Amino acid sequence: MAQDKRPLFTRRLSSWMKGAGASSDIVLSSRVRLARNLDSIPFPPKMGREDALKVLDLAERATDHLVRSTDEAWDFYRLGDMDDLDRWVLVEKHLISPQLVKSSALSGLILRQDEAVSIMVNEEDHLRIQCLFPGLNVEDAWQLGDAVDDVLSEIVRYGFDDKLGYLTTCPTNVGTGMRVSVMLHLPGLVMTERLESVISGLSKVGSVVRGLYGEGSEAQGNLFQISNRLTLGSDEDEIIANLSAVVNEVVQRERSAREIVYDRDRKRLEDRVCRAYGLLTNARLMTSEEAIRLLSLLRLGIDLQVISGLSAGVFQELMIRMRPSLIQRNSGDVLDADERDEKRAALMRNALLKRR
Amino acid sequence: MAQDKRPLFTRRLSSWMKGAGASSDIVLSSRVRLARNLDSIPFPPKMGREDALKVLDLAERATDHLVRSTDEAWDFYRLGDMDDLDRWVLVEKHLISPQLVKSSALSGLILRQDEAVSIMVNEEDHLRIQCLFPGLNVEDAWQLGDAVDDVLSEIVRYGFDDKLGYLTTCPTNVGTGMRVSVMLHLPGLVMTERLESVISGLSKVGSVVRGLYGEGSEAQGNLFQISNRLTLGSDEDEIIANLSAVVNEVVQRERSAREIVYDRDRKRLEDRVCRAYGLLTNARLMTSEEAIRLLSLLRLGIDLQVISGLSAGVFQELMIRMRPSLIQRNSGDVLDADERDEKRAALMRNALLKRR
Repeated sequence: MAQDKRPLFTRRLSSWMKGAGASSDIVLSSRVRLARNLDSIPFPPKMGREDALKVLDLAERATDHLVRSTDEAWDFYRLGDMDDLDRWVLVEKHLISPQLVKSSALSGLILRQDEAVSIMVNEEDHLRIQCLFPGLNVEDAWQLGDAVDDVLSEIVRYGFDDKLGYLTTCPTNVGTGMRVSVMLHLPGLVMTERLESVISGLSKVGSVVRGLYGEGSEAQGNLFQISNRLTLGSDEDEIIANLSAVVNEVVQRERSAREIVYDRDRKRLEDRVCRAYGLLTNARLMTSEEAIRLLSLLRLGIDLQVISGLSAGVFQELMIRMRPSLIQRNSGDVLDADERDEKRAALMRNALLKRR
Repeated sequence: MAQDKRPLFTRRLSSWMKGAGASSDIVLSSRVRLARNLDSIPFPPKMGREDALKVLDLAERATDHLVRSTDEAWDFYRLGDMDDLDRWVLVEKHLISPQLVKSSALSGLILRQDEAVSIMVNEEDHLRIQCLFPGLNVEDAWQLGDAVDDVLSEIVRYGFDDKLGYLTTCPTNVGTGMRVSVMLHLPGLVMTERLESVISGLSKVGSVVRGLYGEGSEAQGNLFQISNRLTLGSDEDEIIANLSAVVNEVVQRERSAREIVYDRDRKRLEDRVCRAYGLLTNARLMTSEEAIRLLSLLRLGIDLQVISGLSAGVFQELMIRMRPSLIQRNSGDVLDADERDEKRAALMRNALLKRR
């Protein structure tokens, strides 16, 4: 298998991985997702093959319209034209959901080339517009999503009810069709065993906490997504204001937890962080699970200035690049698990030693 | 507490730690010990305070005689004049036994300044002459011990029986009074789980296997002492020839075990060795137990050329310098266990990074 030269699969950094944004020591990224459905076609669970192909054709025309109407470059992909590895690379880059891969025979993706906007076609809804920004930046993500939505609605008629708002497959999305989520790195709350109480507090104010790859995925590397639970009965600005307030509260709690961890036993924390660095820069075999755990400690060490000379962004970048499908995609050969562990260890060593 | 400037306690390397010697990838050092007692004084378990002081006085005069009769520098120490920390430093440097510390009110040490010869006074026997050489070098160690013995016997009359030979406190030492022991690094036999069978084979041919600090001490860092069990009924040359043959056999088995480990899963071995290096050069806190374990892996990596640019001797040196009393002695302040772990981690980092 020759090494892949197509930019979508070899680009190392999406735009959201590069910037900093507010509270970027704790909030890694902010995402707004808008669920939209076409007026004239049944919702995906009920549509037939012909309907699905119509949606894909419309999405392709919509991509052309986006190219003409914006200053950005956009591409349209049919998942059925890709191999499975490519699809999982897109999942690992947070551009599509695992669910979209399952229906890949009839699903698609509209992608802005900087990867700040990805629109899933024929997932749970006909269209799911997603905007991803670095740091705590839900307001900008919403503005961008709203603008893309406006351009799309110039050539697409959405299912909309004057009383209910946007109509969606799942009733929990009816109304704004909006889900706002932020990704937080919460090692302090995990280490001080305060996360449980924070999570139960959040569910009382209408927010949901999940692991790195969305619903049902485990929390790895002390990474957690916080998002709004309801989309009905509030307008978009309220949802954003509420979630921002909730996230700011969690950020404060994480900051004070880190102070406690640092003050309580600074030497042991430094030891853990430096050991993580020592293993990341020397190991010859490394599983995903270990890499995630060590990178989380390294990132905490960078934030607390235990480790100097490394930028915090190396964490986001390596958290993505270390994923199995991306490791596989960036190699010329088909790899078994041990060989991926070897490539992953080499990736960590090279990336970290080069930058210091 | 001011930092200690006396060479005995600040000297980093005894002569036996520096050289290489035969089979030095596996045999770290060779030691010959001769048990001797004075004719006119009861054996230590039966002697009174006055007797013990007489032995010490004689040992002091014997030291003067050694200075006059050899080209080397010799010192005499009364353990009662030292503080406990100094005594344990001597134990950690393998110059005296823990047993000598227990009777330190009335015990002493004659030491050649290069530390190749140490003579314990009033341990289990009145005099125990010990010669320590790097690598597999029991013959030279015996020649040196014999020469020192000859010089001493010019001014001391030993307890000797024409039929039995030298008389000693413990019947197992009667005869030659000689114990020959070699220190081996056997990670290959441990990793391939072949050590047990090697040990049981050795006991059948009259050899004994023990851990690093002698009888009853645990095997740490894959280090083992092999020594002769009996001193009666063989002459010195036979004992030496027997033990050398046994050790050469163990060396061959360790070499083939290392080949097996390396061939079976080279990548995993490299990973373990490189992780050990990563932790040794990055940790901020390190216990003795962990340091010993990691140094053993590092040494194996040096021997197998997985790690380059580090000399094998760094292992012997750090195995001694990392010991609690030596860490304490080389610090200006009284340290608790955590502070020793911190100093030990710094010692490892500095020693290994400096040399590469």
